[in-house]
Amino acid sequence: MEILVIGIGAGDPDHLTLQAVRAVERADVFFVLDKGEVKQELVDLRTEILQRHAPEAKVVVGRDPDRDRTSSAYVESVDDWRRRRADVCAGMIERELTGDQVGAFLVWGDPSLYDSTLAILEDIQARGELTFGVEVIPGISSVSALAARHRIGLNQVGKPIQVTTGRRLAQSWPDGVDDVVVMLDAQTAFTAHTDQDADIYWGAYLGTPDELLVSGKLSEVAAEIEQVRAEARERKGWIMDTYLLRRNHR
Amino acid sequence: MEILVIGIGAGDPDHLTLQAVRAVERADVFFVLDKGEVKQELVDLRTEILQRHAPEAKVVVGRDPDRDRTSSAYVESVDDWRRRRADVCAGMIERELTGDQVGAFLVWGDPSLYDSTLAILEDIQARGELTFGVEVIPGISSVSALAARHRIGLNQVGKPIQVTTGRRLAQSWPDGVDDVVVMLDAQTAFTAHTDQDADIYWGAYLGTPDELLVSGKLSEVAAEIEQVRAEARERKGWIMDTYLLRRNHR
Repeated sequence: MEILVIGIGAGDPDHLTLQAVRAVERADVFFVLDKGEVKQELVDLRTEILQRHAPEAKVVVGRDPDRDRTSSAYVESVDDWRRRRADVCAGMIERELTGDQVGAFLVWGDPSLYDSTLAILEDIQARGELTFGVEVIPGISSVSALAARHRIGLNQVGKPIQVTTGRRLAQSWPDGVDDVVVMLDAQTAFTAHTDQDADIYWGAYLGTPDELLVSGKLSEVAAEIEQVRAEARERKGWIMDTYLLRRNHR
Repeated sequence: MEILVIGIGAGDPDHLTLQAVRAVERADVFFVLDKGEVKQELVDLRTEILQRHAPEAKVVVGRDPDRDRTSSAYVESVDDWRRRRADVCAGMIERELTGDQVGAFLVWGDPSLYDSTLAILEDIQARGELTFGVEVIPGISSVSALAARHRIGLNQVGKPIQVTTGRRLAQSWPDGVDDVVVMLDAQTAFTAHTDQDADIYWGAYLGTPDELLVSGKLSEVAAEIEQVRAEARERKGWIMDTYLLRRNHR
């Protein structure tokens, strides 16, 4: 048995690489964890990719366990959630995949950035009850898509970039870097840093027809982004956004 | 006039996205800066991509100006180099592109990571002598390719990642991060950190038939990587490598 973990890009079906198309074509069964949420556009987009490149493939949907978001012990709650997701995935793989068949997980963006699929599969392998190989197909991350749409580089010449979470940015601006990419920010943590002489490059629903882009001096556009973000979230019922903060040279 | 900046991935022609294939098909003229170096495989790979997706396209090669690598003022020497590259590119665009034609630059990896093409085009636009639009097509970065080949995530749960240069890593381990991706390291800067309780995931010529991968405890494999790297560089005349350092939780 073999499991493919396929990065399918940030939201544009044409973000798929030729390698990913081949991988999708090669898979017998696609495993999906259904969050039971309202992100119908994302489900539709995944369906579009499968209809285009693997119209005959079998799709197996597992119920994604709820995560305890109230827990203050962030890492532990994620670890526990991951274990329960591993239970669900192991069950699907065991029931649906046989012999020399190939299963696949489609991952938004790139499987290496803030995605738990690889950790879940490693967890299952470590249990020793199921034996399978894993192949990873890299994808266009929302970070690359963000930079492309704003036509900017992520780094300044010879300088570092930090990729971090909204939760961490809300605590403080990271040490030693002027360029910070922020993911998983449910709390508009950039608003805590409007005293900085920085620019922001913000994007939501990147690569989709609903894409939103705002950029400018952080102190000047922070309120606009908050408003645009709140309206879009209200209208669509969900939001996925990311941004680069670029502090001017001091 | 329009200029496409197309990320073509880390070295595997199948890293091209469907969006990039369409962009390559749409371009009338491809602009290439020839470093006059020995990376013949990279030239061949680019040629393969063009033959596959744009067999009729015109390719214009400009002489990439030499960079003053002896200068101690790193940023200034890069800035000056970029200005001279902008001169060469502006000349090519002016001579070769007319009216509603589409020109393109093919960029290894992703145009947003440690690549100067976007800055060069911005420089040309700022001069005001040439008017053109720029569209950026994101690509699979060597960082995503590295993580995929090692089947790892770049981040640990909820934690940040820093992307930096060998030059900076040689000075010190970055503040506030345990996971560091290193690019542009001509000096095996990881050897300065073998006292850390860290793992390294190293890759060279990612995505190509010559791909090399080594991973393990940094203190145990650093010497092996140095040797593998030196031998490969000697054999092929050039090397492109990148790596992740993952420090264990303290």
